[in-house]
Amino acid sequence: MLQPVMHVLKQKNIILASGSPRRKELIENIGLKVGLCPSLFEENLDPKKFKNFSEFVEETALQKVLEVDNRLKLQGNPPDVVIGADTMVTLDGTMFGKPTSEEEAFDMLNRLSGRSHTVYTGVVLKAMDKTVKFTEKTDVTFGKLDEEQIKGYIATGEPMDKAGGYGIQGVGGTFVERVEGDYFTVVGLPLYRLCSVLYDMFKETK
Amino acid sequence: MLQPVMHVLKQKNIILASGSPRRKELIENIGLKVGLCPSLFEENLDPKKFKNFSEFVEETALQKVLEVDNRLKLQGNPPDVVIGADTMVTLDGTMFGKPTSEEEAFDMLNRLSGRSHTVYTGVVLKAMDKTVKFTEKTDVTFGKLDEEQIKGYIATGEPMDKAGGYGIQGVGGTFVERVEGDYFTVVGLPLYRLCSVLYDMFKETK
Repeated sequence: MLQPVMHVLKQKNIILASGSPRRKELIENIGLKVGLCPSLFEENLDPKKFKNFSEFVEETALQKVLEVDNRLKLQGNPPDVVIGADTMVTLDGTMFGKPTSEEEAFDMLNRLSGRSHTVYTGVVLKAMDKTVKFTEKTDVTFGKLDEEQIKGYIATGEPMDKAGGYGIQGVGGTFVERVEGDYFTVVGLPLYRLCSVLYDMFKETK
Repeated sequence: MLQPVMHVLKQKNIILASGSPRRKELIENIGLKVGLCPSLFEENLDPKKFKNFSEFVEETALQKVLEVDNRLKLQGNPPDVVIGADTMVTLDGTMFGKPTSEEEAFDMLNRLSGRSHTVYTGVVLKAMDKTVKFTEKTDVTFGKLDEEQIKGYIATGEPMDKAGGYGIQGVGGTFVERVEGDYFTVVGLPLYRLCSVLYDMFKETK
């Protein structure tokens, strides 16, 4: 949907405040060039201090953006657009981050098996002296997995760096019977809403 | 979910009865090696002769599989597994195939704008003297698109070889506010159900 403003966006220095190759691929896949600048923000916010998951992921995304934006400005290389995101898998009121061991990955996947969970991605976009924040959530239903399937999946190494212990855009996609919401929220960057915000921001300047 | 039977599947000659690089990529992405053999079946079935969209896409997928299976057998190179699929976009009881002109692509996208449509993918799998058929359907909701956005998208060239005039895994993904069902049904191959069938077929032979 960005084609009418693409010639403007192509002249901008767009930075993704993330080290995620998946997010970079998503953005590049829709024709935008971005630089990756992983945030040094420690991601140590206390979830208990937030009213809900949406506020938590949004605040984490905001802190990533602010840290990267400030650092690049101090380095004399101010970006035009900074995009940050934070993704969280939740089930029964519990947040699942990245598993820290294979045992924890097994436990997560075993709990996700045969039922639905909710993925939140908070996004912050800083550009043109404006900061826009939003969160998208998508429900994901896993088919029933047997022990061998979970162990076999862990052996691929895919679960270890992913929230909830699975990657929907990889082998983990075969577990997913159904999604309800923006699929790309689960990959880590809700494309529709991100592009809507970018389009609204830049359509007057084209 | 195929890891427990992967060592069996890796020894099989698996043929995708399709010329679609998207379908090949999806299958390879989950660790399976497949050969592409586009079917010579003319895809000329009369939709009016079918009770519903599911039966139509399933029969088209079946004819693709039978043609490829027979041809490879006659060539003395019988495949172990043949997978065929057919994808159809439908709105208000009308089927949208691949647009034949930019005007038709505009008309399709304009009709899809701001509302939900349904994508059907019929799949046929022939292996171990068995033929399994199924159809998955997924609802897709487009955001509201303006004329400039549709024209800009058509100018990318992406719509022309795709059912319904869009590719959800490309720039077209930015139009999609929401999906309900298997996302990969919209890409052209419902991964969850395909892998479930493969797993059930091969788990006894491992």
